[in-house]
Amino acid sequence: MGTRNPETMLARVEADAMGAPPFAAWAEQHPAIKVTSFADAAVGAELVVNATNGGASLDVLHQAAAENLDGKIILDIANPLDFSNGMPPTLFVKDTDSLGEQIQRAFPGARVVKTLNTMNADLMARPGQLSDPGSVFVSGNDAEAKAVVAGLLEDFGHRDVIDLGDITTARGTEMLLPVWLRLWGALGTPAFNFKIVR
Amino acid sequence: MGTRNPETMLARVEADAMGAPPFAAWAEQHPAIKVTSFADAAVGAELVVNATNGGASLDVLHQAAAENLDGKIILDIANPLDFSNGMPPTLFVKDTDSLGEQIQRAFPGARVVKTLNTMNADLMARPGQLSDPGSVFVSGNDAEAKAVVAGLLEDFGHRDVIDLGDITTARGTEMLLPVWLRLWGALGTPAFNFKIVR
Repeated sequence: MGTRNPETMLARVEADAMGAPPFAAWAEQHPAIKVTSFADAAVGAELVVNATNGGASLDVLHQAAAENLDGKIILDIANPLDFSNGMPPTLFVKDTDSLGEQIQRAFPGARVVKTLNTMNADLMARPGQLSDPGSVFVSGNDAEAKAVVAGLLEDFGHRDVIDLGDITTARGTEMLLPVWLRLWGALGTPAFNFKIVR
Repeated sequence: MGTRNPETMLARVEADAMGAPPFAAWAEQHPAIKVTSFADAAVGAELVVNATNGGASLDVLHQAAAENLDGKIILDIANPLDFSNGMPPTLFVKDTDSLGEQIQRAFPGARVVKTLNTMNADLMARPGQLSDPGSVFVSGNDAEAKAVVAGLLEDFGHRDVIDLGDITTARGTEMLLPVWLRLWGALGTPAFNFKIVR
């Protein structure tokens, strides 16, 4: 697991902004997972998960370094949320471009697959918490990379993986965020998902 | 039913761009429904459905005239699709504003309820075609207007009507269109709907 400054992160003792315990507590419970720099995490990775703040994603991936990403799948779950104008956040890229495309353009040697960005983090790897796990979308230019990611998603318990097409279709899933945020408000819980009924 | 020019519309003999038969054929089969000008349709209406091209909605509602809309519910199903740059369309308003809000601002005496804009026209009034009708969203500033609309939606067969909040939440549902369009491509049919699973 890569982070900007492993020492600082592990030294934190206070709860985060959402009230979660400091990261060091989690790290202690998961000693097999090394906490290191972005570049060090990427160099040894078979597959890279971009689970960063959307506004920081490009900077973080540059810290991971293009040569450490070449040929690798980047499973991109980030959303281009802009909190600078308060709540609810707006999107800093949308409609004619997407964060997924920005990452693919910045790292042409990587194989970006946008997925999981349409649900709460807690549901991404444990969708079985819901009465029905709902649907999950994949967007990317590389069919083999999407097949690898679909396999992971199915391992997590996802039962309806919808391949939307190339990475430009990430525009669609990133633009789901505004209604996701409003649904969170209306339902009073982030424990919900989109299911495509046919 | 209001249209820009009833005589021209009823005189058309060719199929439309989607291959549908000319409107006159439909009008003949539904003699109880008068085809008239926008203003004439609005003046006698108890509730107004804005089922126009999003790019024309404000112009059409101005033709219907504010005094004919005052106090009335405008059930707004239009989407701000911009086809001027080809396919897929982009949105001419998004993120920090919505077509629903533009209509509410332009007609402050009306009670705008955004709904049904997240599914194919054929499913709006007949959602029972799907194995599960899915969810339908309502956005609007007037609680009584939303209750009236929710009743209509339930009459149509909708079983999960989600009140997202005030008219600003239309930003969320209008921004669903890009992924709706990509899903149409991926699934090869517009006969699908979003369902919010909890």
